Parts: sequence; C-alpha cells; structure tokens
Amino acid sequence: MTLINENYLKLQAGYLFPEIGRRRRAFQQANPKAEIISMGIGDVTQPLALAVIEAMNRAVEEMGRKETFRGYDDGGIGYEFLREAIRENDFKARGVEVDIDEIVVSDGAKCDTGNMQEIFALDNIVAVTDPVYPVYVDTNVMAGRTGGSAGQGRYEGIVYMPCNEQNNFVPEPPKEKVDLIYLCFPNNPTGAVATKGQLAEWVDYATKNKVIILFDAAYEEFITEPDIPHSIYEVDGAKEVAIEFRSFSKTAGFTGVRCAFTVVPNQLKAYTKNGGAVEVGPIWKRRQCTKFNGVSYITQAGAAAVYTEKGKKQIKETIDIYMGNAKFIRQKLGEVGYTVYGGINAPYIWLKTPAGTGSWEFFDKLLNEAYVVTTPGAGFGAAGEGFVRLTAFGRPENVKEALERIKAIS
Amino acid sequence: MTLINENYLKLQAGYLFPEIGRRRRAFQQANPKAEIISMGIGDVTQPLALAVIEAMNRAVEEMGRKETFRGYDDGGIGYEFLREAIRENDFKARGVEVDIDEIVVSDGAKCDTGNMQEIFALDNIVAVTDPVYPVYVDTNVMAGRTGGSAGQGRYEGIVYMPCNEQNNFVPEPPKEKVDLIYLCFPNNPTGAVATKGQLAEWVDYATKNKVIILFDAAYEEFITEPDIPHSIYEVDGAKEVAIEFRSFSKTAGFTGVRCAFTVVPNQLKAYTKNGGAVEVGPIWKRRQCTKFNGVSYITQAGAAAVYTEKGKKQIKETIDIYMGNAKFIRQKLGEVGYTVYGGINAPYIWLKTPAGTGSWEFFDKLLNEAYVVTTPGAGFGAAGEGFVRLTAFGRPENVKEALERIKAIS
Repeated sequence: MTLINENYLKLQAGYLFPEIGRRRRAFQQANPKAEIISMGIGDVTQPLALAVIEAMNRAVEEMGRKETFRGYDDGGIGYEFLREAIRENDFKARGVEVDIDEIVVSDGAKCDTGNMQEIFALDNIVAVTDPVYPVYVDTNVMAGRTGGSAGQGRYEGIVYMPCNEQNNFVPEPPKEKVDLIYLCFPNNPTGAVATKGQLAEWVDYATKNKVIILFDAAYEEFITEPDIPHSIYEVDGAKEVAIEFRSFSKTAGFTGVRCAFTVVPNQLKAYTKNGGAVEVGPIWKRRQCTKFNGVSYITQAGAAAVYTEKGKKQIKETIDIYMGNAKFIRQKLGEVGYTVYGGINAPYIWLKTPAGTGSWEFFDKLLNEAYVVTTPGAGFGAAGEGFVRLTAFGRPENVKEALERIKAIS
Repeated sequence: MTLINENYLKLQAGYLFPEIGRRRRAFQQANPKAEIISMGIGDVTQPLALAVIEAMNRAVEEMGRKETFRGYDDGGIGYEFLREAIRENDFKARGVEVDIDEIVVSDGAKCDTGNMQEIFALDNIVAVTDPVYPVYVDTNVMAGRTGGSAGQGRYEGIVYMPCNEQNNFVPEPPKEKVDLIYLCFPNNPTGAVATKGQLAEWVDYATKNKVIILFDAAYEEFITEPDIPHSIYEVDGAKEVAIEFRSFSKTAGFTGVRCAFTVVPNQLKAYTKNGGAVEVGPIWKRRQCTKFNGVSYITQAGAAAVYTEKGKKQIKETIDIYMGNAKFIRQKLGEVGYTVYGGINAPYIWLKTPAGTGSWEFFDKLLNEAYVVTTPGAGFGAAGEGFVRLTAFGRPENVKEALERIKAIS
C-alpha cells in the first residue's frame, strides 16, 4: 500500500499567494467593473532589457542550427560563461573572491531555498525570522523537520525570531539551540536590511556554534545605501558558515524566465552525528545533478547579458523605476499618516495598519474600497500581524493611481 | 551544529554519466587526435524544429514589450495553452481522457521522477527494475528510503526486478510486499516495450495491492509498432493507480531547453498510516507550487508549437532520423554477429557483450579501439552486466562511421 507523506497534511491552508488570488477573483467577480491594481505578489511589470532580448534571440537561432545546437548543459550546474560573469560582477567587483566551482546555476531562488534543506539531516532544528518568506517554513514542514501547528500559523519544533519595530526588523541570534538558520536581507517582506556589523554578529554566532546560515540575497540589487553589504561574504569568515542565494527574477525581470544561483563555498562544512566534518558543496552538486537537469541555454544566454555594459545600464534603469515607485509609496503613505518601513534598500514597503486593524482586515479594506491588492503581513507569520506588504514592482502610472485611491479612503 | 543528510554518504561512486565523462576525457587527453563519437549519454543532436524556433522567437519578442511581458506563470503548473495542447494531442488523440487539471508542466522528467518520491512516506518499500534509470534509485537513497550498499551497485531495502533475456526485459510484479513501483516503457536503457496485456497485469497488481505505479513514458514518441500503448492510461483502471511522466527532451530535442510534464489523475489515492485515503494530485501540486516556480514562458511557447501541424511534421522528421539510426545500428551489429535488443520502439540499443566480457571492459574496448563512447549496462544495475547501451541520437554520418569502426575491431 502506498503511504502518503503525512507531513504535507500538517501544512496550514494554502500557500499565501493562491489565497490572495482567490479573494481577488471573488471580488472581481462580484465587481466586474472594478479596475484592480496589484501591489501584492512580488512580480515585475517592466519588460526584459534589450540586451537580454538580443542575447536570447541569438540563443534561439543557435538552437535552430545543427552546428550551434546545444543539448544538455553538461553537469547541469550552469555554463561557465554565466558562472564566470557572476563571479566577476556580483562578487569580485565588491571585493569578494568566489570560485566558479562554488556557483551552481538554477531555475529560481524559490527552488534553491526550498531544495537546500534536503541535504541536511531531518533532526536539525531550524530557525527562521517572523515574518518570513513562507517557502523556508513550508519546505521544512514537508520534509518532516517540524511538528504540527503551534497556532498563529506557526509550527512546533521551529524556532521563530520575531522582527518588529523594537529591533528594527533585524533579529539577534537566538538563545535556544538551533542548527540551521534562514536569513533574508534585504528582507522579504519587511524591506529591512542588515548592516555589516549586524551580519558580523550572525557570522560570529554561526562560527561558534558550527551552524550554517542560509542567506537569501535575492533583493541585493535594490540596495541604495552604500554601506549595506550586498553579499554575506563581505563579512570576514562568512565563507566558513554561509550559503548564499541569488536570483535574476527581480534584478533582471526574470520571474517568467527562471534563473538563479547558489554559492556554496568550498570551505563550508556540515557534520555527521559522530562529529565528522563533511564538505557541503559536493553534496549540493550531487543533489542538483541527480534531481535537476540544468537551466535552458536560452535563459542562461539571457542571464549572461545582464552583466554586459549595455545590460547593466538597462537593468539599472528598470530598477530605478521600481525604486522610484518605492520612494513615492513611502512618501504618499507618510502624508496620509501611515507608519511605513522598508522601501529604501528593497522593493517592499511594510505598512503598519491603523491601530486595532488586523492584516487581513486591512487587506480586505484596501481591496474592497481602493481596489488595491496588497499582501497581509500575517500571511508571513504571527509577527507580521498588524502590517501589510506593498510591492514597488507595479507600473508607475498604476502605483500613482493606487496611492491616490488609498489616500481617498484613509 | 548543522548535521548533514547522511543518506547522501550511502551513494556509490558518482552518477553514471560523470564517470563516463571522466574516462572519455582521460582517453582524449592521452590521444588528442582520436575523433571520439558519442553513443553514450542519451543526448540529442538535431536542431530544434523550425515551428519551435519561430514560437520561441515570438515569445522572446513578447517578453521585450511592456504590453505582452509575462512574469510568473500563475500557479507555476504550466500555461493552459500548453496543458490543453497536451490533453488534446498526447491523450485524447489516443482515446485517453485526461483533464488539464491533472497535468503539471515542469522543467524535466528527470526532475519529476526525482521529486515525485518526496510526497510519499519514507517507509514505503520501493521496487525498481534492474537495469534501471539511476535517478529513481539515487533519489530514494538520498531521501532515506534505503539502507546501505548491498553490493553490485544495489541498496538494502529496495526490491529489484531483474529484466533479462528470459523475460524479454519486461518483469512480472514482485512476490515481495512493495509500496511504490517505478516502470519505464519504452525502457531506458534496454529499449524494451510492454504490451497492453503486460501493462494490464501491472495495473491489476497495483489495484489489488493499493500500490502506485510511477510510469515513465518519456520515450513514447519513438514507438513504431501500432499495438504498443503510448500511455499507461490506455489500460482500463490505470488512472486509479498510476502517475505518468512525459518529456519534450527526446521527442522535440528539448534536452537543452527543459520542458516536461506529469499526469496525476484526480482519482489517484495514497494512504495515511491509519488507512485513510488521500488524493495525490493536490499534494503534488502543493509540492510543485512550494518548491518550484514554473517553466519559462519562452520554453512553454516552444513546447506548444510541437503540437501544431507544422511542429508535428517537423518533429516526426527528426524522430525518423533517429529511428533510421537505430535500425542501421541493429542491422550492422547483427551483421558482425552481436546479439542486440531494443531499437525498434525506442532510441536505445541494448547490445550483449561477447561472452566473458564485462560491461565496463567492453566500454573501454570500444572507447580505446573504436573511439566510440557507449554506456556500460552495469552502470544501470547488476542485471545490466554483460550489456552496453548505444543511443541512436547521433548524427547519421557519425553513426555510420562509428559502426564501421566497431565492425573493424570485431
């Protein structure tokens, strides 16, 4: 008899964004004329950069000719031309030495942050921030690293580190024993960033406790303040204790194209129950070359074009549009009297709901009265209650219209 | 302290194809002038069909314009235009009713067959054929569903079903209790196919034992004999007990483009330890929408073009080239006196090595003397010892040259 993985039955409700989609569709059906503006899911709206389009067009043509056709990406960890461009531009240019053998290209940071836990033992105790990107938690629930519901969307067996106004949304290392830590800076959903000093405290903690930090830097390209680190490896000693996740999704508008990468440093070790040290990099590559088969050549050609001079310039223009939105959102919400966080080094604005108004209640108010879709903070965790997240990825004209509507009902 | 998943340490040697690559590179270094011909890894050589190229070019252009840009594939299970084309052409045209909600598009059958085991309990007993596509076994080892090495490349706790000349490479259901069964027809590596009657026996067994069959049909497009089923769902009752895996990799030359899909029928159930029935489809979708984020729009547009009239014609022309190779390989090897299987309904030829010659020994002989790379049967399992696999995916001129060289040394 085939037994189901009963850990899946512990999962609460649907994944956050499908639930938002359901509420949106229900409202649209009841109000077919309402022109809904989405500031909910973090999906981009600007077209791909011309340099990327040109590179992908060339790659498509190559795939149509016998002489230049490419089959499997040998090894499935990414073409050297792309990994070399990553090494040079994302790391060396910021003073960080990364070897191309430490870089593994994939089809998304969601996939990578979801899959990475597989290579670690089931009895590791996982620590996450609260609020948190749901994928970190749900994939650990599915794997069996947690107990059942602990209420308020939490699970037994996970250590939650609250991020709130008191700690400026950057938590300190936990007092409890933990084995595997997920951090995300610039943060989704709060838009908070960690300073080099704050990251150094985490690296110090991880080093002392032989604990690995899974560092999600998918939004690093949105940092505007010069002192904020883009990579955890800008902190001394981080290569001994941290895995970094990067993505082209938001940086280069690849949400519908799918490309990302991980860095697992050669010196990073995990341990057997007997205390033996094991290199993590080869285990991750073994996972990827067994359960994954590489990224489309066309996609990788497009991703490499992001690092050309033309590509960099065009990418920056698009990011400037989004960060212009963020600035506008912060300003307008401030004028109405709302308290807002984020939006300076991240494309997310973390809006404090009026006193006594729950996240979902405020979500419904904005949807029903302003026809604006946001993301309820409570959907990201108990400590997200009393907030909603707004994304800056909309078209500027829509963002302007949305903020006028929000102003009108506030 | 972060603990590694020690199941990875049970894995034997490298994945098969990297080992072949290492031997090939070593030979090439020692013999730089040798013009090696690969009949090893099952990778295609013909360019993409023009209909696919045109569709992907259009899709790239759409991604470059604000009005037609697409971000996330909502839900991440594949665009309806593609799932509808699959439903109509891959199933309805063969008399099989599949709902588009039962189809989930992905980036590869390797990924799907590797990931599917995650949604089932760790205490299921897995049955595989021997020889077997290594991904089925390795992913179960990594998940912890097996013990350590049992010698000859086998693992404790897995039930192996030998496929040999006696059973014409199609095994009967096992006598032991098993909970999850992997079958692949047309078979990789033997090239064998199962008749409708043989598949009906499996469906009957699965129904009686409440066991799910994971049916890999990635090579169905290569079937030439009219009576051989392309889908396990051509057998009555199979939708209650089987998941089917399909791929564009070999059918449409997508090894470097990455697109595939699964069918998990609505009526398919697995069980909790208390015997409660659970629908498998929603659990698989939950897995995919949490650990995966959909396939590139450009890729999906290309895949849909496979089902246009032009696409079908062009795809068939390419498959005819490969199956022409297969016929030629069978014929030439037969003339030299070798016993061969497969190659009639599959792009793989399963060559029996001369008496007393091991798989890797014969592999080395062909590499060193004929400069031809094959795949040692023993790499696919103990029962593959005494065979090598040749693929028909080469360019016809190379296949011709390779067979002349093999003839010369035989």
